[in-house]
Amino acid sequence: MKPLILASASPRRKEILKQLGIVFTCEPSSVEESGLDASPMQWPLLYAEMKAKDVSKSHPNSIVLGCDTLVFRDGVPLGKPKTPEDAYFLLQSLNGRSHQVRSGIAFAYGGEVIKSKIEETEVFFRNNDPQDLLDYVNSLEPMDKAGAYGIQGRGASLVKSISGCYYNVVGLPVASTLDLFKEVNNILCP
Amino acid sequence: MKPLILASASPRRKEILKQLGIVFTCEPSSVEESGLDASPMQWPLLYAEMKAKDVSKSHPNSIVLGCDTLVFRDGVPLGKPKTPEDAYFLLQSLNGRSHQVRSGIAFAYGGEVIKSKIEETEVFFRNNDPQDLLDYVNSLEPMDKAGAYGIQGRGASLVKSISGCYYNVVGLPVASTLDLFKEVNNILCP
Repeated sequence: MKPLILASASPRRKEILKQLGIVFTCEPSSVEESGLDASPMQWPLLYAEMKAKDVSKSHPNSIVLGCDTLVFRDGVPLGKPKTPEDAYFLLQSLNGRSHQVRSGIAFAYGGEVIKSKIEETEVFFRNNDPQDLLDYVNSLEPMDKAGAYGIQGRGASLVKSISGCYYNVVGLPVASTLDLFKEVNNILCP
Repeated sequence: MKPLILASASPRRKEILKQLGIVFTCEPSSVEESGLDASPMQWPLLYAEMKAKDVSKSHPNSIVLGCDTLVFRDGVPLGKPKTPEDAYFLLQSLNGRSHQVRSGIAFAYGGEVIKSKIEETEVFFRNNDPQDLLDYVNSLEPMDKAGAYGIQGRGASLVKSISGCYYNVVGLPVASTLDLFKEVNNILCP
């Protein structure tokens, strides 16, 4: 098996890979997420591919995993909140309804993308009281998170149910990643 | 607000309540789970009510939360595996298909159940290779878990997707518990 590099600095992605008992090193890519000339729904896949390719170029003998996760409401990508007020309005716009979390994953080797995939999970928010949303904003947890919540933290209280892969919402779709990783290994070491 | 007691010794349930920032103490009930004269699908609710009531009798001025989670395959409740071989066959029987996780939650006060509810989540297993299942059994993680897996640990690798509340599968349906807790507080402290 060839060494695996995770092209991401996300502590949540590192934690998930560790939780699975996978051995890897980390090397964040320098790709800027500044908008692309494609449908936003495809951005997570394209960014994941760009990140994997970027790191793969300087590590051609390793398998590189690139990831990107975006939160969508009615097809519009939601960023990270800039202020607590921003976080409150973001959460209010998700309250009592469903939205989509889309993650792209891409495996690169020798500077080229070998396999990539996009995974979508639907998330249904509870009818949270304004005070609940305010308490959550005051916990400051929303501030570094796309869509202004983390399902794995206190943000668990906001979510009623999901449809799809849970770990996709945390930042790395486990089942798809493992399936693709197996395929990549079969291609590179048949 | 009245003090809250969690009538469970489960470290996973304690962790979830803590994660939500809820203040509580723990007092496991002495109720034995030995089968009931009712449809197994109702057992989680009935056990949760029995546990909450049991602890409430000796703590009449606290709100007591009782919980019970069971894993079902085709309506048949699956217990914890007794041996690693048992764990392997359990996992094999869940592989590549869906099963149901049902949790009962019950709030008691003054020795009586005030509110209770059952929550069901559908879990879809990946098509895991026999070697993947064996590796997971060898991690020993399955041994203390109903259905022989923990979605929050290495067992995450076995699961493709879910439909419903994620935390229900871990052992405490967060959204339902918070909704019911609010209702109970409104009844007791209007």
